[in-house]
Amino acid sequence: MCDRLDETFISREDKFQGKIVSLHVDRVRLPNGAEATREVVDHGGGVAVLPLDKENNVLAVRQYRYVFGKTILEIPAGKLDPGEDPAAGGLRELLEETGAVPEIYQPMGHILPSPGCYGETLYLFLARGLTMHSQHLDPDEFLQVERVPFDEMVHRCLTGEIEDAKTVAAVLKAKLLLEI
Amino acid sequence: MCDRLDETFISREDKFQGKIVSLHVDRVRLPNGAEATREVVDHGGGVAVLPLDKENNVLAVRQYRYVFGKTILEIPAGKLDPGEDPAAGGLRELLEETGAVPEIYQPMGHILPSPGCYGETLYLFLARGLTMHSQHLDPDEFLQVERVPFDEMVHRCLTGEIEDAKTVAAVLKAKLLLEI
Repeated sequence: MCDRLDETFISREDKFQGKIVSLHVDRVRLPNGAEATREVVDHGGGVAVLPLDKENNVLAVRQYRYVFGKTILEIPAGKLDPGEDPAAGGLRELLEETGAVPEIYQPMGHILPSPGCYGETLYLFLARGLTMHSQHLDPDEFLQVERVPFDEMVHRCLTGEIEDAKTVAAVLKAKLLLEI
Repeated sequence: MCDRLDETFISREDKFQGKIVSLHVDRVRLPNGAEATREVVDHGGGVAVLPLDKENNVLAVRQYRYVFGKTILEIPAGKLDPGEDPAAGGLRELLEETGAVPEIYQPMGHILPSPGCYGETLYLFLARGLTMHSQHLDPDEFLQVERVPFDEMVHRCLTGEIEDAKTVAAVLKAKLLLEI
């Protein structure tokens, strides 16, 4: 067991700059003085909202996830615009993807989806007292809204049927915080 | 709302090949016939284990996460070796990072940490009835084991003090599945 844990920057090589992520590889000094490389995927941050209607249904979205070659069920979510406040970004994504505007809106902390090399911080919110307007999807965004009873969502998270990490985190946090 | 959600492959450009991740950009056909690009970060998959001792303390690990420039508290976890069975990988990581060998070991499903463009699938296990042996850390791995009462870990997940997504998912799943 070591006392010091921190690693310090030596040098950087930029490898990729995309629309969603960029990637660089740093040389770092380890706590024992040795050198190592760290692969870092940069991401501008994301936000996800758990929307609950008056009957305690979750407004979930079914979306094709190209990386996994299938559709999965998630809560509404998206990438933050540069400089965007996470709370405002959550309301924007909720409206765009489901058409819902909440009366009650509260933060549920944030998660680091994969802190080993993925730089995303993802903020979680709970939205209740929903008024329904129309969806405003991006031109390259295709999804279907599914209303799922909250208890059924909790069950699907516990059985592993819900795979998406932010959805598991938000649903189980809400279950324990709200006791519904 | 559209009926079809799937996107089909048109062409690929490989952008980066590292030790932990690789990255490619695909052109895809969208459900409406238009073309779009998808940035895909490939990852060989990971495994995380929630270890509970006889007094219901979690054996958590404090680790420096270079991407975020700070130490965070997580459950023991790591990357799967190529072709490695997730259950075996979890036992390996648990032993390497904490020295613990469990009597009871059960799966708690898997999560997709960030399915929009990050290709990691992360398997979760619960380990109890621990016998302690010695740690076997990799030469470039530095971490400190902290025993934290299970209820305190649940509390820290709910307040947002625990940021790591796999730790939040595993701790809250165990809380609701075990009712401890």
